[in-house]
Amino acid sequence: MRRVGEIALISDYLASLASPLGSFGLTDDAALLTGIPAAGLVVTTDALVAGIHFFEDDDPGDAAYKALAVNVSDLAAKAAKPAAYTMALALSEAPDEQWAKRLTSGLARAQNKFGIGLIGGDTVSTRAPWWISITAFGYASPRGLVPRGGARPGDFLYVTGTLGDAALGLQLRLQKLPFAPTLSASQRGHLLHRYLYPDARLGLSEALATHASAAMDVSDGLALDLSRMCSVSQTSASVLVSKIPLSEAAKTLTIASPEAFYSVLTGGDDYEILAAVPQDSASAFEAASFGAGVTVTRIGTVEVGSEAPRFIMADGTLMQLQTRGFEHFKV
Amino acid sequence: MRRVGEIALISDYLASLASPLGSFGLTDDAALLTGIPAAGLVVTTDALVAGIHFFEDDDPGDAAYKALAVNVSDLAAKAAKPAAYTMALALSEAPDEQWAKRLTSGLARAQNKFGIGLIGGDTVSTRAPWWISITAFGYASPRGLVPRGGARPGDFLYVTGTLGDAALGLQLRLQKLPFAPTLSASQRGHLLHRYLYPDARLGLSEALATHASAAMDVSDGLALDLSRMCSVSQTSASVLVSKIPLSEAAKTLTIASPEAFYSVLTGGDDYEILAAVPQDSASAFEAASFGAGVTVTRIGTVEVGSEAPRFIMADGTLMQLQTRGFEHFKV
Repeated sequence: MRRVGEIALISDYLASLASPLGSFGLTDDAALLTGIPAAGLVVTTDALVAGIHFFEDDDPGDAAYKALAVNVSDLAAKAAKPAAYTMALALSEAPDEQWAKRLTSGLARAQNKFGIGLIGGDTVSTRAPWWISITAFGYASPRGLVPRGGARPGDFLYVTGTLGDAALGLQLRLQKLPFAPTLSASQRGHLLHRYLYPDARLGLSEALATHASAAMDVSDGLALDLSRMCSVSQTSASVLVSKIPLSEAAKTLTIASPEAFYSVLTGGDDYEILAAVPQDSASAFEAASFGAGVTVTRIGTVEVGSEAPRFIMADGTLMQLQTRGFEHFKV
Repeated sequence: MRRVGEIALISDYLASLASPLGSFGLTDDAALLTGIPAAGLVVTTDALVAGIHFFEDDDPGDAAYKALAVNVSDLAAKAAKPAAYTMALALSEAPDEQWAKRLTSGLARAQNKFGIGLIGGDTVSTRAPWWISITAFGYASPRGLVPRGGARPGDFLYVTGTLGDAALGLQLRLQKLPFAPTLSASQRGHLLHRYLYPDARLGLSEALATHASAAMDVSDGLALDLSRMCSVSQTSASVLVSKIPLSEAAKTLTIASPEAFYSVLTGGDDYEILAAVPQDSASAFEAASFGAGVTVTRIGTVEVGSEAPRFIMADGTLMQLQTRGFEHFKV
């Protein structure tokens, strides 16, 4: 199989991903973003490392798809409309043509799905497994960026979709998922798919911009991410565990063993949106979400206080969490 | 020495670098850039990997300084005014406090020098040596972005500063520099400094925006970067080797051995600016550069043709280059 050097990787593969707007076909030192609305440009950066965020033998297109999706998810949580992205890519050697083609086609799939185009970046070498770092740009809503720190006591807490699937999918992939045999083949497929292909809830943008006081995506687990929202909002919160939306697969597992709830609360990679909505906007928010085709579920309430969010079980007791979610290079 | 986890690295160190504009103190999922001029936002991405772009035992502040400087250099070459940057940072373990402090202070030095602030990013773990990927944003000049591909036959070619110092400094550092003993201590210091602390020729912005038909920074060697400018401009070029501006240190080495010219032409990391200027704007460009305090030197001419740029020696013969410059993961 022929190998592809740095210059050819850009001109023969990545250039096909170049946005018609401001990328100069990836032949310049920099890109030019114009037509930015007065509300501003929302900017987010997320990096994925082989062997840490995905498996070294994963299809490079899947990993690249995920890298772009998790960035777009941040734009979605801020009610921004995807516009463009840059990518830094580090490879340990000149890839073969098949690898380059897969990488490119994974990015092309994500570009098409999320309506975003490549405008620039950097390709470098590394002596280690490959990595990809993306910075994504979105046009801010005329109502501005929905902040993480705007939650107010009394607001209702909502999440989109279902939680825990990606973390359970990862455990399944690692053959470390208890009670996996209780799952049907399609349930297993669902969990694995959710780990590989996060969605970005772009449909919710209008509802968030209009009604939410705070929003963020759930990338490191609900418990940790909600504690972050509360911390920067200077609030506390309570969540009714029984209200947390679960897929059929996750339900099957939590019935088999309540332990699975820990994965639901502390597992990352769901990329659903967590939003705080003032009570008097709640029905309008729910209606707008329904109209946009995005399922939202009310799971709790923002509260006065500075303590960590409480997760209340059906019998009224609090769930004790030994860890709240994923942290890189912990002490 | 106490170690610093991911969350503490952000809140106790990196947050001190947060721009007052749109960074939300690094507590949100994304940043918001507002006040972008109608001419647009110039965006560039460059990543540096320990063991590839810098030494693993380099001061992390020096490496981070360089990472930011090389990004700002791209903004300078496009005549853009630095505004903000995001940073993805990958570490193999929780760093100690001293390391975190050095990293932060190197970035703070670069921020102050270049007038730019941190607005967001991502911190991840890696099993390999650390790396840093920066995406920098600059406000485009009212005259727009100075492109790489605008050179026209007849344009004069200019470079800022002196070329070759960084490549020679790297060789000196690696104890692979021939005739190093002919250098004075201050000449050695100059070369090492140029390798570690690239400048970004921001002072030239106005002159470039007003007069240049094309510009780029020289990061991979003059021979390769000029060939890139010619290729995208669909031109050729000729350079008089004797006109290439050299520091006293580089002059000393080229007198001792003409071989040193190969490093000057093909060595990277200078981050000087290469510009093409129409002949009838040449004196105005030179005057504007002088007024801005940036030394520019005319080294050659853009020509009709598609062949690689020619490097003409004092005796009229062409310099034969076995390699034109640095390429990552070559085939």
